[in-house]
Amino acid sequence: MPATNLMSRIRSEVQRRLPEGAGRLLVGVSGGPDSLCLADVLLALGADVVLAHLNHELRGADADADAVFVQAFAAERNTAVVIERLDVAAAAREAGQSIELAAREARHAFFARSARTQSATAIVLAHTADDQAETVLMRLLRGTGIEGLRAMSVLSTLPGAPDLAVLRPLLRVTRAEIERYCADVSLQPRHDASNDSLDHTRNRVRHELIPALQQFNPGVKQVLARLADSAGAELDVIAYATSAAFAVHARQQPSGVTVDRAAWRALPPGLQRALLRECVRRVKGELTNLNFAAVEEARDVLNSAAATGDIALMADVRIIVRTPEFFVTRV
Amino acid sequence: MPATNLMSRIRSEVQRRLPEGAGRLLVGVSGGPDSLCLADVLLALGADVVLAHLNHELRGADADADAVFVQAFAAERNTAVVIERLDVAAAAREAGQSIELAAREARHAFFARSARTQSATAIVLAHTADDQAETVLMRLLRGTGIEGLRAMSVLSTLPGAPDLAVLRPLLRVTRAEIERYCADVSLQPRHDASNDSLDHTRNRVRHELIPALQQFNPGVKQVLARLADSAGAELDVIAYATSAAFAVHARQQPSGVTVDRAAWRALPPGLQRALLRECVRRVKGELTNLNFAAVEEARDVLNSAAATGDIALMADVRIIVRTPEFFVTRV
Repeated sequence: MPATNLMSRIRSEVQRRLPEGAGRLLVGVSGGPDSLCLADVLLALGADVVLAHLNHELRGADADADAVFVQAFAAERNTAVVIERLDVAAAAREAGQSIELAAREARHAFFARSARTQSATAIVLAHTADDQAETVLMRLLRGTGIEGLRAMSVLSTLPGAPDLAVLRPLLRVTRAEIERYCADVSLQPRHDASNDSLDHTRNRVRHELIPALQQFNPGVKQVLARLADSAGAELDVIAYATSAAFAVHARQQPSGVTVDRAAWRALPPGLQRALLRECVRRVKGELTNLNFAAVEEARDVLNSAAATGDIALMADVRIIVRTPEFFVTRV
Repeated sequence: MPATNLMSRIRSEVQRRLPEGAGRLLVGVSGGPDSLCLADVLLALGADVVLAHLNHELRGADADADAVFVQAFAAERNTAVVIERLDVAAAAREAGQSIELAAREARHAFFARSARTQSATAIVLAHTADDQAETVLMRLLRGTGIEGLRAMSVLSTLPGAPDLAVLRPLLRVTRAEIERYCADVSLQPRHDASNDSLDHTRNRVRHELIPALQQFNPGVKQVLARLADSAGAELDVIAYATSAAFAVHARQQPSGVTVDRAAWRALPPGLQRALLRECVRRVKGELTNLNFAAVEEARDVLNSAAATGDIALMADVRIIVRTPEFFVTRV
């Protein structure tokens, strides 16, 4: 293997993203360039690695060949591997879901199950700066606030399994760099395994929209991936400000949360919103179905100094509006 | 004039954006649909209005006809009007600027001068949700953080003249709504006056990119304009958190700013950055030329507990790194 600058950059990027003393890592491997590069780098760094491959049975013989390829790669590198197969199309039909959603849920369940049986502490995925840019664009197009622009994180947890860490150490590395890495170290990935997504919109974004945007700025992928970083840093500040405001102006009680109304009214609108959301999270444990318009209506009432009464913020969350405090409680 | 829902929506949108007891308003009017609609609505609301038109002398007889049209509109409505002409192409050549930049600076100077001679307290501009969406897209393409996504604000001040308010009451109204408004109230604007921007990139975004994005989401313009609102609200929270952190952890002194280093280190990275920027603003009055990479290098040093020494944050701003405090000062 020739020692290239690119190789050391990717290796140090991956190394920097691994938590100190990371235990066993479950690495999602499709057989495509991104995940093969990731597995190669982790093995070169001496990490304790188990490869994990789910055959979605969506591309017939090609999908079977991907699984055989991953099996052979694991054998060649003398590495543990978990390979499972699932008829995702049938699962989607049964659940009345899109193929894309059924595939995602199947992968999450497969990763969670495999991490547990293999005693892995973290799942490592090969999403790249290109994937990140596509995700940012898709969210922009669909409509999003800053929250959505954060897109994927280098460090997060598996949906539905908050005890399992998910690492994406290649999130700042572009697909072009990965292709060059594969050529430099003579990896021969299965290209079909990753070139097309199951997601029709993502494919159109990748193959039509990104090239159109590159006409305006050849570096648009990097620019969008950096925007996600910037959004993440800003959201961390907002989370910090929300905790600080909660600590000073609110009191958690067994039956709900009491908030100093005059202090809340003095906050900027974005922090008023964030503090109300935090109250809901405290009384309910989660925020699903909390509607932006309902929060705005509640803010209108709470901001009129004279108003008192009750607000139905959600089907099961009420705000009892008094002076000098208001009270958020579960019904 | 037929009373339509659209008409009352636009009128109430404009009315909601005018400050209480607004004095005389200087309204920028090109003669195109957006600015003609704005002038019509403000006159219908009984505002004290002076129209202002700058002939950039860039489109020959067409530009002259625009000026004549605005003059006639003012006469018909019995309204004060200021019309000036400037050879913007010559001004750009002389200053070695792009036409677009020279035109913008000339407009700002014209608005400032006219507002003062006409005793206007605010300048009202006809930027629409379409302009906002284009601005957001252009900034996205060029590369921006959340700060850039805020794009234009409903209420701001004139660049170079912080005492003059700038209002953009149509920033939530789409161009299509304005076209319908003009038809409904039988306004006959000069279409050439606004259909093409002086900015080549903006024209490509308007005529090529936005239609391409509408294939993905027909409502993409609204979605991008709302993103700007959302970014604005989040940035207000960050500004609030930065002031709060400065008040608790920093001390302004005659020779610079002293910051509690342990407290600063406990802040999230985005707030560490914002607080350093605020220190620079306090010692220098402004942030021009403060480089992101220099801030990141300073953060690396300040975050290593053991490091002491001097950091050249800018050519004329240094950080003297000590424990338990660091000191930001102008050289």
